[in-house]
Amino acid sequence: MHRTAPWRDGGAQAEERNAGDPVTDEATARQQAATGPAVLRRINAVAVLDALRVGGPQAARVADLAAATGLSRPAVTRALAALTESGLVVSTDADQSAGAAGTAGKLGRPAQHVRFRAEFGHVVGVDVGPHKVLAVLADLAGRTLATCQLAVPAQVDGPRLFETVRTALTAVAGRAATAPERLLAVSVGTPGVVPPGSDTVRVAPSIPGWAGLPVVPRLRDWLNCPVTIDNDVDLAVLGEQWRGGSAAARSLVFVQWGERIGTGLVLDGRPHRGATGAAGELGFVDLLAEPDTVPDRPLTERLPDGLGPFEHLAGAAAIRRLARAAGAPLGPDGDTAPLFAAAAAGDAVALAVVDQVAARFARGLAVLLLLLDPDKVVIGGGLSRAGRTLLDPVRAHLRRHTLADTEITASALGDGAVAVGAVRRALDLVEPQLTAALG
Amino acid sequence: MHRTAPWRDGGAQAEERNAGDPVTDEATARQQAATGPAVLRRINAVAVLDALRVGGPQAARVADLAAATGLSRPAVTRALAALTESGLVVSTDADQSAGAAGTAGKLGRPAQHVRFRAEFGHVVGVDVGPHKVLAVLADLAGRTLATCQLAVPAQVDGPRLFETVRTALTAVAGRAATAPERLLAVSVGTPGVVPPGSDTVRVAPSIPGWAGLPVVPRLRDWLNCPVTIDNDVDLAVLGEQWRGGSAAARSLVFVQWGERIGTGLVLDGRPHRGATGAAGELGFVDLLAEPDTVPDRPLTERLPDGLGPFEHLAGAAAIRRLARAAGAPLGPDGDTAPLFAAAAAGDAVALAVVDQVAARFARGLAVLLLLLDPDKVVIGGGLSRAGRTLLDPVRAHLRRHTLADTEITASALGDGAVAVGAVRRALDLVEPQLTAALG
Repeated sequence: MHRTAPWRDGGAQAEERNAGDPVTDEATARQQAATGPAVLRRINAVAVLDALRVGGPQAARVADLAAATGLSRPAVTRALAALTESGLVVSTDADQSAGAAGTAGKLGRPAQHVRFRAEFGHVVGVDVGPHKVLAVLADLAGRTLATCQLAVPAQVDGPRLFETVRTALTAVAGRAATAPERLLAVSVGTPGVVPPGSDTVRVAPSIPGWAGLPVVPRLRDWLNCPVTIDNDVDLAVLGEQWRGGSAAARSLVFVQWGERIGTGLVLDGRPHRGATGAAGELGFVDLLAEPDTVPDRPLTERLPDGLGPFEHLAGAAAIRRLARAAGAPLGPDGDTAPLFAAAAAGDAVALAVVDQVAARFARGLAVLLLLLDPDKVVIGGGLSRAGRTLLDPVRAHLRRHTLADTEITASALGDGAVAVGAVRRALDLVEPQLTAALG
Repeated sequence: MHRTAPWRDGGAQAEERNAGDPVTDEATARQQAATGPAVLRRINAVAVLDALRVGGPQAARVADLAAATGLSRPAVTRALAALTESGLVVSTDADQSAGAAGTAGKLGRPAQHVRFRAEFGHVVGVDVGPHKVLAVLADLAGRTLATCQLAVPAQVDGPRLFETVRTALTAVAGRAATAPERLLAVSVGTPGVVPPGSDTVRVAPSIPGWAGLPVVPRLRDWLNCPVTIDNDVDLAVLGEQWRGGSAAARSLVFVQWGERIGTGLVLDGRPHRGATGAAGELGFVDLLAEPDTVPDRPLTERLPDGLGPFEHLAGAAAIRRLARAAGAPLGPDGDTAPLFAAAAAGDAVALAVVDQVAARFARGLAVLLLLLDPDKVVIGGGLSRAGRTLLDPVRAHLRRHTLADTEITASALGDGAVAVGAVRRALDLVEPQLTAALG
């Protein structure tokens, strides 16, 4: 996910690509015979477009693009003409007249600066949860242009939640002066298990009637663009890697810590979702039972309040229980902010509760660190708002249970991590749409 | 690691490689100018060699190699001449005279069949443990030609263990009628943590004086060939994937279950070793403590008999303890084979012990399945020899603690998994040696 402009490496990418391939004039001749020059010109245009997009919002010169793609300057110039005509690329030269014709300057023609037209179209990332729907609209450079957050009423069901998603999409498109039908790609994040390559949520205990609903086909029919659905924390970890300051972590774990506890994993630079899409289910790890206690029913049939054993032990509900039992402060609806505020102010009772919460959470997180040994862990979800008041004791307890001293930070994206990751995912879907624009 | 002959796909690999790259006659002309035809001929020879090696031991035709590499038939023929001269390739044509000259057959010249000379050189994989050193010598097709297993005396230290490794390497080379100095690559598997890209074992509690020993530099000085060292279970999982019948599993977990418990991970097709090389430490997961018990010392300072909490709970020593307490049968040195034999024969006391062992192990393995959701788990190590007697109850208990029904099998490679994985690793080191042979 971490991208840098290839021309900053002095064309290393293009050299690497050529060095490994047995390129001969015979092979090229055969390829041209099989595909024709029009197809080759299109391939070259796609390569130039890709180099421009990877390079980010700043302008590039023909020489940069030639170095990045391994193409000749005339081939790059031809590709740029096609890309400009289709609206994907625009010249940024201050002195348009000097750049346009062949007028000789002091040292030959001045370099032509071009940039990818990020305003060519828009994508939307949607975080769909049992309490809120958050839609973020971005341009093709990933810049946020509009957001729309709608509260989800209690006891919502699948069909009503789907209508809320439609409303949010319509609203966010309207705020960016476009229409839902003109979006280029939409990515949806949802609680529950989404099997790899599937369009459908398999289990989503927190939203009745949501699992099995044909969300993706219905959105595709309406929007007529690529639409995907993924587990929310699987998108959150992409968001953290992209915009959360964790781009350098080759193996990154995002832990959602709120009413529920789940993790999104990027391992060795790639998302790891598991054989059935159910990787990272930290919330279902059982640290409660005596080792020789044998449960009489399967895990899914013995979930108190639908929570996994570790969620039951260390999730928001458990924290409320511990605070009430100790007489520590809580907000009107069981909001835990007053508890953490009291602890930060030095209240002994609150500090004891926070320490107990941290100890429990650390025991579960330690399991994950021992098995995955990631570069970094980002804690998100509602409880991450407590910041150092909660994470410092978590770090202290972790050291008692692990072999390596892994970096633990609070999410910089907060509640937005899932939607930001969804925007990143949507941008990855746009490629074929842009190629199609080349005609 | 799973490789198939590219010419069986009708040259799909070569087409794929060409389709994505902007290949123009200009680019080729520039590359030729920069590198010269001699370099290009060498690149082509390497490409043909690679295609032949990937294709396995059977012979290939010029047409197959042309399809696999994207090279013309004349270019392949030129490459084969260079490869034959350097001893890397040999003709397998039954009718040598017909294949050698340009004598016309009924439908033109007969196809020339060639194969990679797997006997060009040898590699060795070495499993170094506190109880045995196992060296396996293989040809370049990965066929085992000789093995040598040496017992390691009790209370061995690092320097004496290193001498045992030297003895095993000398012996296994001698059995294959070669000398250690003529080996092309050696891969060593060891207990303990080997940081990524490191030559040195960081911690190896089971062998005093082994961590920090410059094993790799000493072997390189002696052998003058590429030498690597890796954690043993990290190699075992490669062995299982390569030769253990688990090639189809994109995410594969190998669990070593004996005195110690550790895991090697292949996730999404690639080895996952962790940021500090310490991924997969299932043996250190703590399922023993009450959730609100806070240990007063770090994990590494409270290991009974140097064992991690889960090893202490479900490793071989725990099984001996449980068997003795129940009055179940054990062998003279605490060998657990009689326990499993009695259980297999229906002995109620032995069955109860085995069920308790399975229940404990399943609770730990469940944690790994909930976090990684792999395609398959292979159980190796001494306890895997108990086969279905132990694994059937493990499977039954697992279902009480997991969300997905993951395939669990006993290792087909048994005690050889680490050495087989080391051979696979050594074969991956050989590439530059072969290219060097081209002169």
